[in-house]
Amino acid sequence: MLFLHEIRRNPLLWLLIFVPVVFVAEMRKPEAHVILFFLSVLAIVPLAALLSLATESVAAKTGDSIGGLLNATLGNLTELVIALAALRAGQIMLVKASIVGAIVSNSLFMLGASFLLGGLKHHTQEFNPVNAHLQMTQLFLASIALLVPSAIGGAGAVTASQFTQHLSLCLSILLLTTYGLGLLFSLKTHREFFGSAVTEVNEESLWPLSVALPTLAVVTVLVALISEVFVDSVQKAALTLGMSSAFVGFIVVALVGAAAEMTAAFSAARKNRLDLSVSIAMGSAVQIAMFVAPVLILASYVIAPTPMNLQFWPGSIVMALIAAISATLVTNSGKSAWFNGVLLLTVYLIFAITLYLLPPSS
Amino acid sequence: MLFLHEIRRNPLLWLLIFVPVVFVAEMRKPEAHVILFFLSVLAIVPLAALLSLATESVAAKTGDSIGGLLNATLGNLTELVIALAALRAGQIMLVKASIVGAIVSNSLFMLGASFLLGGLKHHTQEFNPVNAHLQMTQLFLASIALLVPSAIGGAGAVTASQFTQHLSLCLSILLLTTYGLGLLFSLKTHREFFGSAVTEVNEESLWPLSVALPTLAVVTVLVALISEVFVDSVQKAALTLGMSSAFVGFIVVALVGAAAEMTAAFSAARKNRLDLSVSIAMGSAVQIAMFVAPVLILASYVIAPTPMNLQFWPGSIVMALIAAISATLVTNSGKSAWFNGVLLLTVYLIFAITLYLLPPSS
Amino acid sequence: MLFLHEIRRNPLLWLLIFVPVVFVAEMRKPEAHVILFFLSVLAIVPLAALLSLATESVAAKTGDSIGGLLNATLGNLTELVIALAALRAGQIMLVKASIVGAIVSNSLFMLGASFLLGGLKHHTQEFNPVNAHLQMTQLFLASIALLVPSAIGGAGAVTASQFTQHLSLCLSILLLTTYGLGLLFSLKTHREFFGSAVTEVNEESLWPLSVALPTLAVVTVLVALISEVFVDSVQKAALTLGMSSAFVGFIVVALVGAAAEMTAAFSAARKNRLDLSVSIAMGSAVQIAMFVAPVLILASYVIAPTPMNLQFWPGSIVMALIAAISATLVTNSGKSAWFNGVLLLTVYLIFAITLYLLPPSS
Repeated sequence: MLFLHEIRRNPLLWLLIFVPVVFVAEMRKPEAHVILFFLSVLAIVPLAALLSLATESVAAKTGDSIGGLLNATLGNLTELVIALAALRAGQIMLVKASIVGAIVSNSLFMLGASFLLGGLKHHTQEFNPVNAHLQMTQLFLASIALLVPSAIGGAGAVTASQFTQHLSLCLSILLLTTYGLGLLFSLKTHREFFGSAVTEVNEESLWPLSVALPTLAVVTVLVALISEVFVDSVQKAALTLGMSSAFVGFIVVALVGAAAEMTAAFSAARKNRLDLSVSIAMGSAVQIAMFVAPVLILASYVIAPTPMNLQFWPGSIVMALIAAISATLVTNSGKSAWFNGVLLLTVYLIFAITLYLLPPSS
Repeated sequence: MLFLHEIRRNPLLWLLIFVPVVFVAEMRKPEAHVILFFLSVLAIVPLAALLSLATESVAAKTGDSIGGLLNATLGNLTELVIALAALRAGQIMLVKASIVGAIVSNSLFMLGASFLLGGLKHHTQEFNPVNAHLQMTQLFLASIALLVPSAIGGAGAVTASQFTQHLSLCLSILLLTTYGLGLLFSLKTHREFFGSAVTEVNEESLWPLSVALPTLAVVTVLVALISEVFVDSVQKAALTLGMSSAFVGFIVVALVGAAAEMTAAFSAARKNRLDLSVSIAMGSAVQIAMFVAPVLILASYVIAPTPMNLQFWPGSIVMALIAAISATLVTNSGKSAWFNGVLLLTVYLIFAITLYLLPPSS
Repeated sequence: MLFLHEIRRNPLLWLLIFVPVVFVAEMRKPEAHVILFFLSVLAIVPLAALLSLATESVAAKTGDSIGGLLNATLGNLTELVIALAALRAGQIMLVKASIVGAIVSNSLFMLGASFLLGGLKHHTQEFNPVNAHLQMTQLFLASIALLVPSAIGGAGAVTASQFTQHLSLCLSILLLTTYGLGLLFSLKTHREFFGSAVTEVNEESLWPLSVALPTLAVVTVLVALISEVFVDSVQKAALTLGMSSAFVGFIVVALVGAAAEMTAAFSAARKNRLDLSVSIAMGSAVQIAMFVAPVLILASYVIAPTPMNLQFWPGSIVMALIAAISATLVTNSGKSAWFNGVLLLTVYLIFAITLYLLPPSS
């Protein structure tokens, strides 16, 4: 009944009809890649919207930090499931591109669009700079950890590849440890630093936990299932539509994979809860870099044909570093207006245009 | 009469005598490059001083932000005219060097010398950090946009050069759009952020707008005319005087081209109006990167023998990025003392010494 | 009597027994490198502790800035003496590695461990961000000066090496000049900016100046003598123990060379005098980069077989820049908690692990 109420209120949820359509189409016409690509995108959008509503309900009851963490975890669960499927199929290049693409999309596009959308509605907005600063520093640090093997392993010969593999393993464990300590810090020992600057919640639109929690779980599974159809079809659809494979990995997969978090971050920004937006966008970028990437390295030893390492295409590391520095500069003050969003989106567009124009051989 | 009064008060203006001398010398002895070089520098200095007086008068009546923008526009008009002449002559290397040189000179030398000169007179000075921070972020972003084609195009073959050309065109339009939105932001929607921290103007030394505006116009034209003589002579004079062509492009052309803004910025710093200095120096650097450079790319399709792209000598992009980061670090607090100036000037000297010692083949 | 009191109070000082043991062992068994290596480390630790007590006593009587400067000077005197010995022996690679290693160790390990140790005892700690910010900016600037010859000289031929040599000489003089001006600024003209944020000193544990100053002098000489034994043995001991030469230069020599300052910085952090810790750690890093390195370049013309230049292994410059940026990000707010230390130590561990795993050929 609560769902019917939401569906009547929110026209976006009408797209939920595409969820069964995708599954039927995938069984009937598994070779219609372009159609499956568009259908799966159409099905992910309303699921993302549902996820956003559920997460906000939980977040309102647990505080923005835990709410944001929860949101980022469930959002990145999708990305983790997609990446694991690609790993199993041996598509290591796509996994690496989608890791860096997710970092760049979250810290430039998601954060930038949140600032822009929030700024168009509210003259200036505030957020907790302590939280933002901690996450920027972690993102910068994680980018460095991802940079080192590429910078040094690139020079190498036969021994270099073994060196890169050992180094990737050690750095993965180091990143996971630091990430765990960071959670201990922000959720336990120094929790008071991370309170929201502004918390005005519209109580009436919230769901009780008994509805919100199961919804979170079921919708996440549905997103994961449809994302697999999406990944299956996206590469071939891209070829048909004339996009380079770098553009697909960095931009398309990353944007669709983060659709759930984006809807939540944008909606929070419009509601002047910029703390939640920043928490979702940056928390998600940090979690991809410090949690998802190391877990994929470790998992690759078990499930992939060959183990994955942390050696990335140099250009992609430059993008991750620039994204971290840009986000740091723009969020430095704890205040935001619409032009902050324009600045981040411009950096994102610079990358997107470059990747789109890149000749196929690269 | 107002002019006679100023000329009596300000001995620098006596150098105005060199303005007609340059034109005569250029007609009589167009091959005396070293003499024309020194004469044109001597003529530009007093014109720059006049420009500074006129700009301060206008700035005092319109607020520091618009005044600074006006100043930067008219100063960079000179640089634009010089660069257009060089483009017509097909001297694309010189144009590129002078673009990066202007960014580096403004954000290191002009800003650094303003801090030093102001700091020697006033113990500590304050300026509006919001304005400075916004311009730093834009400068950093523009440097990234200029970096990307060089970083990726350098690897390339035949297709790469076409890719670089397309990319340069797209990024130029993107930069111009963001620059326009930035003006909308700082002059319209969020104007209140950009008020000065300190505004004590010595009212008696100001000109009325009816004198200041025509002076601005006439003097700018004169500067442009003499700058062309200067550019004609500087390359050959440099050879005679034993300077490398990199040093000429990055240091000499950039310093003389910005003489007008420098006089204004230094004089404002001495008068404890550091907001105006920062506004002139950083505004000018941002405008070169986000307005002049893209306009030159677009103009090169119409007036140049071959179109220009955004692929720079890698070392020059490193200099622009380091200049942006250094200026960001030093202006971070909104306070300044003489040593802030020393720090920026040291970075500038590191670049100038390196370019001066560079072997001619490079 | 004061010494007996301290020795009874502080069990660490019992290790002073190893000071004569090192000298005896070195005379009797100069070829027992592994033993000499461990003995010299064991002897340096208590001397470092004494130095820490003496420095805190002087610092308490002269203000944290001068106290920190004094501490950094005497600590770096050790490193200077070690490096001069290595220069005399023509070991230029080791000198260069230890310079960059000292910068990285001080700004990541010493600062990070101070934040961690202080943060485990005190919930949050404050320090003067003006002082920290000035030193970060100087460190960043010095890293740039060290970067430029490597970035440009690397491309070169025969002329390039002469160019690098000239450039190194000019930049050394420039760095020394800026360093001197920085001292003038922080100790003379703008002294008031650099007062401590917190100064609660336990008066009873302080020594009078008549004891502290001679102790400082004598202990520094002893540290220098033993450090020479250490450097003599460390390379061969490292080979026996299976460490790469890069790891020895960047990590082992730098950590042991800075043992004295570390004990002082850690003890100050535990006593909630974080200003002194930051002053020691960053002041020492700046002094290595802007004072010790240029002095070694100039000295190499007199005492070394071939003059030294500022051309470093590119990876080492990347490490110095990342160290400077990481320290800037983490100290930005003037507040610290234990996780700030974890972040800096993680970056340090990333470098240490990479250097440790590096194949011997690199």
